[in-house]
Amino acid sequence: MTQGKLRIYGDSRSGNCYKLKLLCAELGMDFDWQEVDILAGDTHTPEFLAMNANGKIPLLVLPDGRCLAESNAILCFLADGSEYFRGDAFVRAEVLQWLFFEQYSHEPYIATSRFIIQYLGSPPDRQTELEQKKQGGYKALGVLEQQLEKSDYLTGNELSIADVALFAYTHVAAEGGFDLGNFPAIGAWIERIRMRPNFLEM
Amino acid sequence: MTQGKLRIYGDSRSGNCYKLKLLCAELGMDFDWQEVDILAGDTHTPEFLAMNANGKIPLLVLPDGRCLAESNAILCFLADGSEYFRGDAFVRAEVLQWLFFEQYSHEPYIATSRFIIQYLGSPPDRQTELEQKKQGGYKALGVLEQQLEKSDYLTGNELSIADVALFAYTHVAAEGGFDLGNFPAIGAWIERIRMRPNFLEM
Repeated sequence: MTQGKLRIYGDSRSGNCYKLKLLCAELGMDFDWQEVDILAGDTHTPEFLAMNANGKIPLLVLPDGRCLAESNAILCFLADGSEYFRGDAFVRAEVLQWLFFEQYSHEPYIATSRFIIQYLGSPPDRQTELEQKKQGGYKALGVLEQQLEKSDYLTGNELSIADVALFAYTHVAAEGGFDLGNFPAIGAWIERIRMRPNFLEM
Repeated sequence: MTQGKLRIYGDSRSGNCYKLKLLCAELGMDFDWQEVDILAGDTHTPEFLAMNANGKIPLLVLPDGRCLAESNAILCFLADGSEYFRGDAFVRAEVLQWLFFEQYSHEPYIATSRFIIQYLGSPPDRQTELEQKKQGGYKALGVLEQQLEKSDYLTGNELSIADVALFAYTHVAAEGGFDLGNFPAIGAWIERIRMRPNFLEM
């Protein structure tokens, strides 16, 4: 690790980890990437658990050794004061509202379905669970669609970390078995983000 | 509603709603409470969905009509700049880390188990689900215990909104079938919070 550089532990296939890469590309921020294989148990070694007792990626390590977990908390830290996370307390709380929505009402349905299908090969004993996740996933997409009918980005006319967080798993929702065909505002928003000059593909 | 006062839509039995009451008691902040019965469908009326398309409580409404959803985003808004949520970007991000941990790794196990038992009367067809939630819930309690062995509160020696958020469902974990007997640091933390001069019982 280069002295003074941020280090990110992550899995390249994970949307939660991709969020950080996407934001760093927007910010022009450099970092060291440490690839972690969750299926091989890399997040449950004593060394990793000493950095994050919850055994999850992504994990940010500062040059002084301090660690920060939870993808959306890391987004807030990296974007603090930048155009992607600023404004008065209410404006920032609106961004946070979308970040909590993402982790509670979106990720457990859409990202988890994608995980079961893409990581685990959609095993027969997970099919009921996959089916049960459809309703919650489509409900979350409906909430996004409603907002994106009103504004170009989730909290207004400028991209914020709310968009970065929601883009990560929404733009690969098809890999989780979700059809975005009936969500034109989401489709336009995905293209809008893809067209940004510093956009980074997953 | 009194002009100029905050209004909170919530269910008195919900830990996510209690978080806001507990913080407001700490802050000495006044608000109007609008009782909502989620089982009666109060959060799915057109009027409510116009305020929160995700159909969830708690919901904060400002005197000017702006709405904010997601309990932990509301905590951030109400506590902004106070002793319960301040410091540099990293210190605030550590608080956020716990808030995201609460919503992703704690609430879906402990609060949902309590909901199934206390709200729904622990129906026979939810027993497998309850059993499956044990592992995740005890894992979350283990993460809390580890941190609380090191510091009086989750992010150091002062109470922050991280403690408010985690206290809400942890102190009633027994109602979700979780035994706190093996978590002495959590037990001491619960008593520490209960002893605070402005503490408000659920």
